[in-house]
Amino acid sequence: MDLGLSLLQVLGSVGVFVFALTGALAASRRELDIVGFIFFAAITGVGGGTLRDVLLGETPVFWIRSPEPILVCLVTGIGVYFLAPFVEYRYRLILWADAVGISGYCVMGAAQALKAGASPTGAIVMGIMTASFGGIIRDIVAGEPSVLLRKEIYVTATLVGAALFVIAERWGVPFWPAALAGTFAAFAIRAGALAFGWTLPGYRSRPGRNPPPA
Amino acid sequence: MDLGLSLLQVLGSVGVFVFALTGALAASRRELDIVGFIFFAAITGVGGGTLRDVLLGETPVFWIRSPEPILVCLVTGIGVYFLAPFVEYRYRLILWADAVGISGYCVMGAAQALKAGASPTGAIVMGIMTASFGGIIRDIVAGEPSVLLRKEIYVTATLVGAALFVIAERWGVPFWPAALAGTFAAFAIRAGALAFGWTLPGYRSRPGRNPPPA
Amino acid sequence: MDLGLSLLQVLGSVGVFVFALTGALAASRRELDIVGFIFFAAITGVGGGTLRDVLLGETPVFWIRSPEPILVCLVTGIGVYFLAPFVEYRYRLILWADAVGISGYCVMGAAQALKAGASPTGAIVMGIMTASFGGIIRDIVAGEPSVLLRKEIYVTATLVGAALFVIAERWGVPFWPAALAGTFAAFAIRAGALAFGWTLPGYRSRPGRNPPPA
Repeated sequence: MDLGLSLLQVLGSVGVFVFALTGALAASRRELDIVGFIFFAAITGVGGGTLRDVLLGETPVFWIRSPEPILVCLVTGIGVYFLAPFVEYRYRLILWADAVGISGYCVMGAAQALKAGASPTGAIVMGIMTASFGGIIRDIVAGEPSVLLRKEIYVTATLVGAALFVIAERWGVPFWPAALAGTFAAFAIRAGALAFGWTLPGYRSRPGRNPPPA
Repeated sequence: MDLGLSLLQVLGSVGVFVFALTGALAASRRELDIVGFIFFAAITGVGGGTLRDVLLGETPVFWIRSPEPILVCLVTGIGVYFLAPFVEYRYRLILWADAVGISGYCVMGAAQALKAGASPTGAIVMGIMTASFGGIIRDIVAGEPSVLLRKEIYVTATLVGAALFVIAERWGVPFWPAALAGTFAAFAIRAGALAFGWTLPGYRSRPGRNPPPA
Repeated sequence: MDLGLSLLQVLGSVGVFVFALTGALAASRRELDIVGFIFFAAITGVGGGTLRDVLLGETPVFWIRSPEPILVCLVTGIGVYFLAPFVEYRYRLILWADAVGISGYCVMGAAQALKAGASPTGAIVMGIMTASFGGIIRDIVAGEPSVLLRKEIYVTATLVGAALFVIAERWGVPFWPAALAGTFAAFAIRAGALAFGWTLPGYRSRPGRNPPPA
C-alpha cells in the first residue's frame, strides 16, 4: 500500500470520526440512551460518504465492504455517552467538529467523483453534497433546525474547497497539494464564519419597501 | 441525434428549471445568501431525477454524467436571488411552478422505469416518486410544512398522469402522444386543485361521533 | 421454488404489510385523502427495503422488479382508509405494527447484506437501518416527532435481533432457526418496551450539578 492511499484512508477515518462526534453530541442534546448515541454517530458519520457512493454507483457502499467506519462510529458513540456530561458547550463543539468534517469531505467527495469520470461541475456539486449530507440527516432525524439555514457562511465554504481542488487538479497540481489547499480553504472560511460571524451579503426580501426614516 | 431524444432533453431541462425555481424561491423565503439559493435550486431541481436514477441503478446519476442540469440550477438560483424581491406572491409561484414540474416528471419517471424493464405498476409508482421527491426534500430541508400534507389534490395528479401514460404505451400509443396526454392530464388536475381548491372526499376521523345537531 | 425461499417471500410481504399499515395510519392522523393513504402506505411499506437494495447495489430495487409489494401497499392503504375510523387507539396500533415490522426487517436486512458479501458488522448495521428507515421517512414526511427520539428502547431491539441472527449464522446455525431467534428476540424486547416502558439507563446531561437535596 502506497503512502498516498493510506494517508487518504486515515483522513477518511478522521472525517467519519468528527461527523460521528457531531451525531453523538446531537444524541446527547436529546438525552437518548447509549444505543441512540451509537445510532446517531453512525448515520452522521457515514451519511455523506454513503450518499456519495450511492450517487456514483459504487455499491455495496463503503461501510458494508469494510467494518472500520462503523467501528469508529461505535467507539465515538460510546465515548461521547460517557464524556459528554463534562463538555460545557456541546452545540459549539458540534459546529466546530462539523467544520472540520465538511472541509475534508468536500474535497474527498469531489476527488471520488472525478475518479468515477464526473465532469468538473458534477465533481464540485458532489463535493458539496458529500460534505453537507451527514449534517442534514443528523439535524432532520434529531429534529434540530438545519445548520444550513443559519446565517453564517456554510455551503459556500464547501463550494470554495471543492472548486479549488477541482481547478487545481485540472491545472496539473499533484493530488495532495490540491487536496490540502481545498481542505484548508474550506476550513478557513467556515472557521471565520463561526468565529467572526461571517455572512454573505444578505438577501433582503423587498428592498425599498420599508426605507429607513429620513 | 433524433428529434424525439432532443425534445425529451429539452423537456428534462424544463423540469429541472421549474423545480430549481421552487427551490430558490423557498431559499428566498428563508432569506438565505446567494449560495443558499443555488444549493436549494440544485437539490430541488435534480432531487426527483436523482432518486429515479438511484432506484433504477442508472449510476453515476444524470447530473454527474453531464453538467447541463447543474448549470440550469446555477443560473436559476442566481436569477431568483436578484429577481425574487420583485415577485409579489412567491408561495403561489412555488405552487404553480411545482405543478408544471410534477406534471412532466411523473411521465418521465414512468418512462425511464419502463425502459429499465419495470412492471407497469412499478413504473407508475416510480413516476409518482420522481415527481414528488424534489418537493419533499425542498420542504424538509427548508423546514416548511410538506406540500404533500395540504388538502388539495397533489399525489393524485401525478398518479393519473403516470397511469395514463403507462396504459397508453401498453395499448400501443406512440411515445409522444402518450407522454403529452399524461403530462397535460396531471397538470389539468393539479391546476384545478390550485385554482379551485379541488379535493378528494375528505377522510373524517370518526364519522358519527360528533353528529351535527338536529 | 423451494419452501425456504417462498417462506421468506411470505415474510417479506408481511413486513411490507405491517409497515404500510403504520404509514396509512399516519395518513389518517393527518386526515389525508385516499391517495394520500396509499402514498404513505407505499413509502413506509417499501422504504426500508428500498434503502437496503440501494446500499447493496441491488437495482432496480425490489418493487420495480415485481409488483406484489406495491399491490400490498395499495390494498392496505385503501383498507385503512375505510376501516381507520373504527380503530380506537391508532397511535398505539402504529407502534405495535411498527414493532412487528422492525423485528422481521432487522433480520432480513442483515441476511441480504451477508448474502451480498458484507462483513458481520456491516450486516448488523444494515439490519438496523433497514428496520428503522421506513419509520423514519414516515415520521419525517408526516411531520410527526420521530419514533427514534422516544425514551423506550427501539434501536436496541433491532440491534439485538440483527446481531443474534448474524452470530448464529456464523456459528453454523441453519438459516431459519437463526432468523426466527433474531426476529423473536427483537420483538420481545420492543414489545417489553411498549408494554412496560423499558428504557436503557438514561443519559443524564450533567450528573452532580443538581444533586438531590440531602
